[in-house]
Amino acid sequence: MIILGIDPGIANTGYGIVKSITNKVQPLHYGHIKTSSKEISELRLKTIYDTIIELIDQFKVDEVVLEDIFFNKNVNSAIVVGEVKGIVKLAGANTNSPVTTYTPLQVKQSVVGYGKAEKIQVQRMVQALLKLKELPKPDHAADALALAICHARSHKLLHLKESISAKLTVDKKDNTSV
Amino acid sequence: MIILGIDPGIANTGYGIVKSITNKVQPLHYGHIKTSSKEISELRLKTIYDTIIELIDQFKVDEVVLEDIFFNKNVNSAIVVGEVKGIVKLAGANTNSPVTTYTPLQVKQSVVGYGKAEKIQVQRMVQALLKLKELPKPDHAADALALAICHARSHKLLHLKESISAKLTVDKKDNTSV
Repeated sequence: MIILGIDPGIANTGYGIVKSITNKVQPLHYGHIKTSSKEISELRLKTIYDTIIELIDQFKVDEVVLEDIFFNKNVNSAIVVGEVKGIVKLAGANTNSPVTTYTPLQVKQSVVGYGKAEKIQVQRMVQALLKLKELPKPDHAADALALAICHARSHKLLHLKESISAKLTVDKKDNTSV
Repeated sequence: MIILGIDPGIANTGYGIVKSITNKVQPLHYGHIKTSSKEISELRLKTIYDTIIELIDQFKVDEVVLEDIFFNKNVNSAIVVGEVKGIVKLAGANTNSPVTTYTPLQVKQSVVGYGKAEKIQVQRMVQALLKLKELPKPDHAADALALAICHARSHKLLHLKESISAKLTVDKKDNTSV
């Protein structure tokens, strides 16, 4: 399964693409989409949308994962990030790629094993898990890779749960038949 | 000039299309795009996006106008409305239709002449200005028509200002040459 993680932002949207296979996660590509504040917002959104569609096509992405950012105070920032989230979801819908969202807490919990981990701890863990020579940069790209890893792990856990539950059902049947 | 006004919302997006000619504004079409909460958000956004693209094509829309909603408390609602705003802006960018935003205060000021006007006052004014037989319904469609009227008026005022300022420059030149 090829997973595209997206850390949404109007000036800087991070992306990270990984391939999830049986027991490991391999990095395929990561980076960020920068847009200038000199451009009007609809053209900035179009740049982000077009780049995401290109990435999905080029890397044959199966699933898109998006960070579910919470804002406590700045409602205007929330609306702007909402605009980027909207076009990422549309990119998923228009390419038949399911979109899943995770909170930063879920990502840290999954990647580092501790929901309140520092940014640098997450980056080091991403570097180690993906066997990267250097720390993934910029920060937004590292966050996007962490999201993709989190999704790969959730998927595997889900799969594992399903097979265990299927096995238990079979065992139960066997027991009853004895 | 054909103007498409949009009152964005994930469950219910109102739209109103008007034709602005020299001294009046004519209604072309209005209504709302409903999406079900049973659907996943990316498919709801896709429904809204596809319908807006269809409206722009069908009515040969020149400009898109979007309500700039402010939220005081509910940040989650702000993000969801942001998502819809994002895809409306993308629809504008993808059809080369400039997108302008107005706050509810600006719309009321322009349509009723009073920024704190009640919803029903705005609806009656929209009905009168567009010579509609009935009050425009539902509310979201009425708001979208009000937005389109507000933009038509701002456009005319801007045009008027420019021609007055051009005239003043000509007059000044004439005076200096005397």
